[in-house]
Amino acid sequence: MALVVQKYGGSSVADASCIKRVAQRIVATKKAGNDVVVAVSAMGDTTDELLDLAEQVAPLPPARELDMLLTSGERISMALLAMAIANLGHEARSFTGSQAGVITDSTHGKARIIDVTPGRLREAIDQGHIAIVAGFQGVSQDTKDITTLGRGGTDTTAVALAAALEADVCEIYTDVDGVFTADPRIVSAARKIPKISYEEMLEMAACGAKVLHLRSVEYARRFNLPIHVRSSFSTKEGTWVVSDPYTEGTEMEQPIISGVAHDRSEAKITVVGVPDKVGEAAHIFKTLADAEINIDMIVQNVSAAATGRTDISFTLPTSDASTALTSLKKIQDKVGFESLLFDDQIGKISLIGAGMRSHPGVTATFFAALADAGVNIEMISTSEIRISVIVEQDGVDAAVAAAHRAFDLDADQVEAVVYGGTGR
Amino acid sequence: MALVVQKYGGSSVADASCIKRVAQRIVATKKAGNDVVVAVSAMGDTTDELLDLAEQVAPLPPARELDMLLTSGERISMALLAMAIANLGHEARSFTGSQAGVITDSTHGKARIIDVTPGRLREAIDQGHIAIVAGFQGVSQDTKDITTLGRGGTDTTAVALAAALEADVCEIYTDVDGVFTADPRIVSAARKIPKISYEEMLEMAACGAKVLHLRSVEYARRFNLPIHVRSSFSTKEGTWVVSDPYTEGTEMEQPIISGVAHDRSEAKITVVGVPDKVGEAAHIFKTLADAEINIDMIVQNVSAAATGRTDISFTLPTSDASTALTSLKKIQDKVGFESLLFDDQIGKISLIGAGMRSHPGVTATFFAALADAGVNIEMISTSEIRISVIVEQDGVDAAVAAAHRAFDLDADQVEAVVYGGTGR
Repeated sequence: MALVVQKYGGSSVADASCIKRVAQRIVATKKAGNDVVVAVSAMGDTTDELLDLAEQVAPLPPARELDMLLTSGERISMALLAMAIANLGHEARSFTGSQAGVITDSTHGKARIIDVTPGRLREAIDQGHIAIVAGFQGVSQDTKDITTLGRGGTDTTAVALAAALEADVCEIYTDVDGVFTADPRIVSAARKIPKISYEEMLEMAACGAKVLHLRSVEYARRFNLPIHVRSSFSTKEGTWVVSDPYTEGTEMEQPIISGVAHDRSEAKITVVGVPDKVGEAAHIFKTLADAEINIDMIVQNVSAAATGRTDISFTLPTSDASTALTSLKKIQDKVGFESLLFDDQIGKISLIGAGMRSHPGVTATFFAALADAGVNIEMISTSEIRISVIVEQDGVDAAVAAAHRAFDLDADQVEAVVYGGTGR
Repeated sequence: MALVVQKYGGSSVADASCIKRVAQRIVATKKAGNDVVVAVSAMGDTTDELLDLAEQVAPLPPARELDMLLTSGERISMALLAMAIANLGHEARSFTGSQAGVITDSTHGKARIIDVTPGRLREAIDQGHIAIVAGFQGVSQDTKDITTLGRGGTDTTAVALAAALEADVCEIYTDVDGVFTADPRIVSAARKIPKISYEEMLEMAACGAKVLHLRSVEYARRFNLPIHVRSSFSTKEGTWVVSDPYTEGTEMEQPIISGVAHDRSEAKITVVGVPDKVGEAAHIFKTLADAEINIDMIVQNVSAAATGRTDISFTLPTSDASTALTSLKKIQDKVGFESLLFDDQIGKISLIGAGMRSHPGVTATFFAALADAGVNIEMISTSEIRISVIVEQDGVDAAVAAAHRAFDLDADQVEAVVYGGTGR
């Protein structure tokens, strides 16, 4: 008997009939002899509707109250899901994040999980019940206030519960068949990746592949917990995210590149004319960190010897940009930089693959493909298993398609049919 | 400085603009120098919408999960209300029933409050914050599961919080100006009652006056807590519910009758041919109590000497009738009664007034008024300060109007105008 943790997102529980279908899937897993714990998101557009209500009563609602409001969404979906399971003759009990023992810090809106104390879940499982847990939420260790983990947080809830309960697998149900080599809406020949390492998945998630929440992959990696990303509309195998995907079999050689990710949600800020002195860059990024802003890529030009000044560019979520600009303005005099430039018409293309470690020339092939596609590169950043470039937003689609083709990722005829592609 | 507990029902917070208006009222109370704690219901039709969703996924949802579902309604309204107050520049913090320390038994759907431990509320008040508490809900002492207090439970939440916090007054805001001598929709000349005793208010509430929840009055009476029932649409004085309304001034003589209440929500069950032996009635009502059914009036006829059998009739909420009939069927053979009769086309008219203790002839005047109005009496039940009769449902309006007139309760010209009456 295995312990399976399943995660269902908002689109999987969008209405009563969806909830009943998910209930059947959960009961089937239980009937197959598994213990089942489920993390569930709010129904469909509930979160947006609640945000809209909040906007109507207060343009700048206190974060504590916003969390209190938003967490009602999962309370509704989890109770309904438990009822639907009961209606199929199985015992289910719903638990809020707090009841499930999801302990977080006090950063409302994007709290981090500090600990999971799943005593009540364990008790429910031991009694043969299916436990349904509200995703996306927890309770703060210090203030005992309700917190939320940020958008996509239900993935993290599921993985955190799976780790704490020492589950055999964490299944992430979604509306696509798994993780793809590129976004099938842009590259019709994109293929499903059968297995991928945590590191590659982290890079994919960080670079815009929305199928898995970044923090959930970090969490799974730390606890070496297998994640199975799969469709809630079929019983097909999806994508397994594991520690080393290439040791188990030899059925396929490790590809150089696992996939091409893209992201249109970032903006670029350039701090112009920063005095090239020790500690200035630190001051800038300390200020941004204090404002709870997540920086992505950072590029610093070689300073011009004549002026003793340099430019520092960085990318960040567009939604954080106004906070960042305000924070930086405040330290302009102290740091002595000249001005701030802002650009939100950018896109990021990332090539990800553990294979590039041992394959020279990947960068050259990538850049040549972009050049052939007429796409100009604005910023570059690399890791051991990733190359990311910032380009004009209008060039994103062409760049993704060109890179996908250049690294032989396009699907063969058979697989392409599965995803509605044109094949070749 | 006083501590004021205020209760706002669903119609007072039906949408964003209502919530903003309520926020202004709360802030005004705070600005006047009071500490304020607020108990709030779910917005408008939220509870019905949630019930509808539950119905769609499971015709017979488990009570625990139904409570989990329904309590999301108050979570939404209280968070929005706290935001609206913050938007007016005042600090507000929302608390679930559990966070506010509302401890109940485990009877899902109609839990009773066992204890209130308002430590977090006290702390919020001491910090100068306005505390907003989810009405209608608590947490069970034994299982730590979320419970609800039943329809109208937010009144009880407000009074329980006021008692635990030793508040100076509990203000119940509603969409009418206070407690009336009769339902103004039936009797256009009905008047607002300025002061009424707990006992009379209890009888009014028990007999169908919906403005205050019965249990909240019981609770207030036990702790001798003044309740002020008033309109959320005006600043007029409403109705004060206090221990002895007639000692403070002599501005008005105690009326014989305080008001005429009516109730169409009950049904009548008659157990026909019960063997007239010791313990049979006890067996019947023990069975009903075990099924958690609240019985209202009970009438047992004198047994017919020839048969040694008697009929027992009782009234109960129509919603409990099918459960009651099922439970009684199960003991038919054991008790040996002949059959069950069921009638849901009944109405109850109640005359309430502490003055009737010292005034003989009240019953005679009441029954004469009903006879003149052509209304037949099916059952009678009396207390020290109340006379209730069961009549055909079609006769309710005429009976209420006749009784109101017979006891000189009709308003004079001036007051009648206030409530849109025709005056006389």
